[in-house]
Amino acid sequence: MKPVRLAILGLGTVGGGVLKLLQENAAEIRRRTGREIEITYVGTRRPRPDLNLPASIKQSADLIDIVKQADVDVVVEVMGGIHPAYEVITEALKHGKQVVTANKALLAEHGNELFKIADDHNVQITYEAAVAGGIPIIKVIREGLAANKIEWIAGIINGTGNFILTEMREKGRAFADVLKEAQQLGYAEADPTFDVEGIDAAHKLTILASCAFGIPLQFDKVYTEGISKITAQDVSYAENLGYRIKHLGIARRTHKGIELRVHPTLIPEEELLANVNGVKNAVLVQSNAVGPTLYYGAGAGAGPTASAVVADIIDIVRDIIYTEDGAGTIPQLAFEALADTPVLDSTEMTTGYYIRLNAEDQTGVLANVTTILSRAGIGIDAIMQQPRLKDLIPIVIMTDPVVESKMNDVLAEIQALSEIHGEIVRIRIELLEN
Amino acid sequence: MKPVRLAILGLGTVGGGVLKLLQENAAEIRRRTGREIEITYVGTRRPRPDLNLPASIKQSADLIDIVKQADVDVVVEVMGGIHPAYEVITEALKHGKQVVTANKALLAEHGNELFKIADDHNVQITYEAAVAGGIPIIKVIREGLAANKIEWIAGIINGTGNFILTEMREKGRAFADVLKEAQQLGYAEADPTFDVEGIDAAHKLTILASCAFGIPLQFDKVYTEGISKITAQDVSYAENLGYRIKHLGIARRTHKGIELRVHPTLIPEEELLANVNGVKNAVLVQSNAVGPTLYYGAGAGAGPTASAVVADIIDIVRDIIYTEDGAGTIPQLAFEALADTPVLDSTEMTTGYYIRLNAEDQTGVLANVTTILSRAGIGIDAIMQQPRLKDLIPIVIMTDPVVESKMNDVLAEIQALSEIHGEIVRIRIELLEN
Repeated sequence: MKPVRLAILGLGTVGGGVLKLLQENAAEIRRRTGREIEITYVGTRRPRPDLNLPASIKQSADLIDIVKQADVDVVVEVMGGIHPAYEVITEALKHGKQVVTANKALLAEHGNELFKIADDHNVQITYEAAVAGGIPIIKVIREGLAANKIEWIAGIINGTGNFILTEMREKGRAFADVLKEAQQLGYAEADPTFDVEGIDAAHKLTILASCAFGIPLQFDKVYTEGISKITAQDVSYAENLGYRIKHLGIARRTHKGIELRVHPTLIPEEELLANVNGVKNAVLVQSNAVGPTLYYGAGAGAGPTASAVVADIIDIVRDIIYTEDGAGTIPQLAFEALADTPVLDSTEMTTGYYIRLNAEDQTGVLANVTTILSRAGIGIDAIMQQPRLKDLIPIVIMTDPVVESKMNDVLAEIQALSEIHGEIVRIRIELLEN
Repeated sequence: MKPVRLAILGLGTVGGGVLKLLQENAAEIRRRTGREIEITYVGTRRPRPDLNLPASIKQSADLIDIVKQADVDVVVEVMGGIHPAYEVITEALKHGKQVVTANKALLAEHGNELFKIADDHNVQITYEAAVAGGIPIIKVIREGLAANKIEWIAGIINGTGNFILTEMREKGRAFADVLKEAQQLGYAEADPTFDVEGIDAAHKLTILASCAFGIPLQFDKVYTEGISKITAQDVSYAENLGYRIKHLGIARRTHKGIELRVHPTLIPEEELLANVNGVKNAVLVQSNAVGPTLYYGAGAGAGPTASAVVADIIDIVRDIIYTEDGAGTIPQLAFEALADTPVLDSTEMTTGYYIRLNAEDQTGVLANVTTILSRAGIGIDAIMQQPRLKDLIPIVIMTDPVVESKMNDVLAEIQALSEIHGEIVRIRIELLEN
């Protein structure tokens, strides 16, 4: 079977991330699709010998020439900017190539024309990476929620803005002060206008609204207000009232028409959206059948953006397979080839443990219990002695991760201590860290 | 163009929800797909004249006969239970029908055989509704995250269990007491074993893990522990330590093999997953490119489950269109036909407002300001007077939703008051309610 051949245009953060991801996860992706993905061209303004690309990948600065080549099935545009991306994509579509792009500004401002050209040439532009980075929100709205009439969407879709507002709230800092830090950390550009004045969020909202309501892209009609006038004073007052200020993109269907707006917004602090902190993104979608659903994750960065770009590529690969082989579009259990990786017995599983004992005399017990744990090499994360209850003293111990078989042995030993009454309670702990 | 023809088997909560949704959202779904969806058969053990189904829908109790009919393209199995669902689906697949099911128990326990039969007959079983109800988690894992190597999944995938644990924590109630209420509310079955002993969650985890790691379904290897032994005492101790107890389904890849486990788990209270309350579900997925992403929504109920079932149907309709017409699988902007719904000017948008004034003499000002608001018919949700700052008294007012044009007029009037100094701050409020 022929591999699916890509031209990757742009080798910045995102382009580099796509190259790295296709290489790093090649085996897993092949197991999912059953087909090779091959990079035939890389388009960059300047040659990049420093990248040590395999000799099989041709490098060229002539992007228009690349997209005409016969050994290119999919053009991956990850340069950003309106020009020459517009011209290059147009040319690619006219030559019957599928296009994958992460370019929100281009789509929000010129998507209507580009989608028309794609339709005319019976190809598609896909753009999962253009909105909310690695969160597959375009797929969710176009497909996952397709049975619903979507009523409104409210999203934290600019990570820089959310980082600034989070710092302002958590540390009582001023806007200008946090912005400077965000620039030093690389979260914000030297010219932060796109992020802090809401233009980037308005680009993304334009795209989300079109997918949610089936309307043309209308970036020029988005009401856009940034966060640069938000003061620490208002953040603090809002908090006293039980609210948090978030910079939201909101698209809402009303009986009069559609509201498209980007602005700082007070939302109740108990909402999940109010608890999305730092550079993370999240999109809350209200639909008429499923009700509210929320999608959370990294909205920017090389890995997350590449995750979305490559997901689009995999969709195209699966469509090609469907066309050529007539096999089902997506493998029923997600992978073409299932693995026989063993499933572990519970005794082999590793987690932290919360342990509660009821002890007669806590001083002696604590020494005995901690000695047993330490002899077994089990780290203690916290110990808490509780007020006496029915003549016994409850002791709670939280351990570091340990394999269950070892914990079973240790608990049997502790249970056997004469000062321990009743059955020891144990509940597993997960820190949910990466 | 021929409509796509469905047989719906089962007319309980889910079946009824599917019928209602297909009817209620027919126009929006047609706008998305460009193709009619027609129900040709409804299969129920007993005829249901009370439903007043259109005469064009044939009713029959002979399910095996229905799935053989030529005027059925897709069989929607929403009966639940292992038998006769297994036999009926098998027969449908052998007759070349696409199958959509919400049946987690059947798939977790017999999916390997059924998927094999589907493959052999070049059709598919789709099952978005089988896991986490209306959250499109199967699509996310099979497609949206397909570029990633998934490392682990941790999900709240049983709403009943989460409702019980939420009530225990928020109100200090005992397990048995809350379970009784859950049964009265219809959240828990008369026999709650499947929910509270973790079997339902284990069924769902089995399916999630197979999609995430590409392994056969292995329900019998899931370590399963319910919540029936969790006490209010442990819930409270965990909280004192900064943790919440959630009933999680966890699937994790380790170097030794795969962990599949369902058990009560202490997780840090600042995690979004710890703040998923009541009957809601949420799934946290850790992947190697995108990092952590989280998906939240309703895990059960007629509407949410129907949302997932009908999303699967729309996928099939789109595949049929692709096969017949060669048009792109999914419309680029989600809809085949875009609407010219007007986008509103910001002056026409309705939101609540947070207003901050700096006043010289608050007593007089409050009367003046509230009079202006009340004359305009704007409701006040909260007023907060803040400590004097630089000789002025900050006053914060939160209003009920009001159209911007009216708020503009009112603020101009307030701004003109001689006691008000500096520019009035206004920030929009959204309660994010349905």
